[in-house]
Amino acid sequence: MANLTLPQAEALITAALTRANTSESNARSVARALVMAEADGLKGHGLSRAPMYAAQAKVGKVDGNAVPVLTRLKPALIAIDAASGFAYPAIELAETVLPEMARSQGVASASIHRSHHCGAAGHPVERLAEAGLAAIMFVNTPSAIAPWGGSKAVFGTNPIAFACPLPGRAPLVIDLSLSKVARGNIMTAKQRGETIPEGWALDAAGRPTIDPDAALAGTMVPMGDAKGTALALMVEVLAAGLTGANFAADASSFLDAKGPPPGTGQLIVAFDPAAFGSDAVTRFGALAQSIEAQAGARLPGVRRLKLRAKAKTEGLAISDALIKEIEAI
Amino acid sequence: MANLTLPQAEALITAALTRANTSESNARSVARALVMAEADGLKGHGLSRAPMYAAQAKVGKVDGNAVPVLTRLKPALIAIDAASGFAYPAIELAETVLPEMARSQGVASASIHRSHHCGAAGHPVERLAEAGLAAIMFVNTPSAIAPWGGSKAVFGTNPIAFACPLPGRAPLVIDLSLSKVARGNIMTAKQRGETIPEGWALDAAGRPTIDPDAALAGTMVPMGDAKGTALALMVEVLAAGLTGANFAADASSFLDAKGPPPGTGQLIVAFDPAAFGSDAVTRFGALAQSIEAQAGARLPGVRRLKLRAKAKTEGLAISDALIKEIEAI
Repeated sequence: MANLTLPQAEALITAALTRANTSESNARSVARALVMAEADGLKGHGLSRAPMYAAQAKVGKVDGNAVPVLTRLKPALIAIDAASGFAYPAIELAETVLPEMARSQGVASASIHRSHHCGAAGHPVERLAEAGLAAIMFVNTPSAIAPWGGSKAVFGTNPIAFACPLPGRAPLVIDLSLSKVARGNIMTAKQRGETIPEGWALDAAGRPTIDPDAALAGTMVPMGDAKGTALALMVEVLAAGLTGANFAADASSFLDAKGPPPGTGQLIVAFDPAAFGSDAVTRFGALAQSIEAQAGARLPGVRRLKLRAKAKTEGLAISDALIKEIEAI
Repeated sequence: MANLTLPQAEALITAALTRANTSESNARSVARALVMAEADGLKGHGLSRAPMYAAQAKVGKVDGNAVPVLTRLKPALIAIDAASGFAYPAIELAETVLPEMARSQGVASASIHRSHHCGAAGHPVERLAEAGLAAIMFVNTPSAIAPWGGSKAVFGTNPIAFACPLPGRAPLVIDLSLSKVARGNIMTAKQRGETIPEGWALDAAGRPTIDPDAALAGTMVPMGDAKGTALALMVEVLAAGLTGANFAADASSFLDAKGPPPGTGQLIVAFDPAAFGSDAVTRFGALAQSIEAQAGARLPGVRRLKLRAKAKTEGLAISDALIKEIEAI
């Protein structure tokens, strides 16, 4: 186990990706995202992704040199063509214009297609909240969840992320995939050679499984059963149907270097709280306090913030095997 | 048991509410909504609500003569003050302007406050989908769900409703409360003198209960546990925090005539699929077909459409007791 500071970890990833057909600007964007996820304790979206990304960039499944293209469709709507590159630079491009658009229009939306794995979906909305907005991001991912009553996956784990500013403190951040657990957890278990708990996933025949390989070949159990499946459908319509991205069933895996680009999508909706009323952010704070006032209750995302603060001062503990794998890129 | 045609049922409700301090225009709006919910098989939001509504209108907990007021806040954002009246006329007012706003801006939002029980949340978004839009409505309701790890309810059951057009057929409609089951189901069980299944609700001390009265005095179990609770928080921020409506914990009950107006809120976000791309609705249709092609799978909302069609031809079977209660208003 080695200990890396966050800048060291970013430099490690940036250097590795630039050796794998990726522009320095894109490599830096990816590195920031992976290191932030690792710092937040979201290991499934952290440094472990780097070797997979590099393998995809080497064969062109992700275009490491892509430059995302922004088109203004309507006063409150932009489209971003991620151009089969990494999702992170495309999302960062959306973030450069959404605050101004939301402030002038009240609400604004960014439709991102030909995109890729967006990692910790809470981070872009968190940054928008730091810019004063309330924001939701709907994300589609390669197929993972079957329709209710069916057996073949047609929805991704389809995360919904939300953030809003809180007075005098870090934003409230909600980030959840609509599978009972994030697929990244199964990836992590696989990499560690561990089994997964029952109830997370079904195998390709629809039977419960604790084997991560069988789970990755099968489907994920949705959170909240039929209701969670309905939400996955909603996200599929928004993040892929509206954006023009590939539906889950047509998207290649984020996890290997086979096939064409995944071409998934993200839809961001940003609201300017100030447009709704001068006291909106104060009200968000009052709601947060009413939760934290209860014994045993806490806001979502608080654990991540603690881990992030710890990582900033103490660095990241990364396995020697993973570092070796990244250095070998 | 009596059989009423839909127009007869609407006339029954309209007449009853106009006897209870409610303008004819508002009474008609409420009647349309309750009869549509009843026709869709959503009995918890159907005719059984009429006596409760009337009792509230009589004492001014809901202002039956309220006229909702629309304010244009930004090009893509309107606020509607439901003026402590029924939610239905306020939402219908939003529907009169959202399609044009979404078409010109790409996305548009309506923020509704000082509102009330909005019944079947799928209906307004379904009508927006019939007008060609994809639409989400976030709804806050009086307190029902405790924060994860806490014991006191600070979130409502907080429905999320979504609809989008499908080519050549009725829109796709998703409508789900974030409690494991809708509170209306518990109301219905109470009115029928039945117990409720385990796992639906906790009593005021946080213990599982099958007694509908204890359940109504306690909290609802969220769908998907911690994730469902996080979604309930997101909806609370959007539908109450942003709109300026009462938070769940400050909202009086929809179910009795005690206290001040509930003052809850609704936030509608409408997208113009045509602004995203000429083939968006075709894509929605392809996704729907890929679901329906699977044995055992069906689209959400299909059962409601069947029941609605049946109700249109065969009428509604309403208990004599409920008709008597409505006629006695």
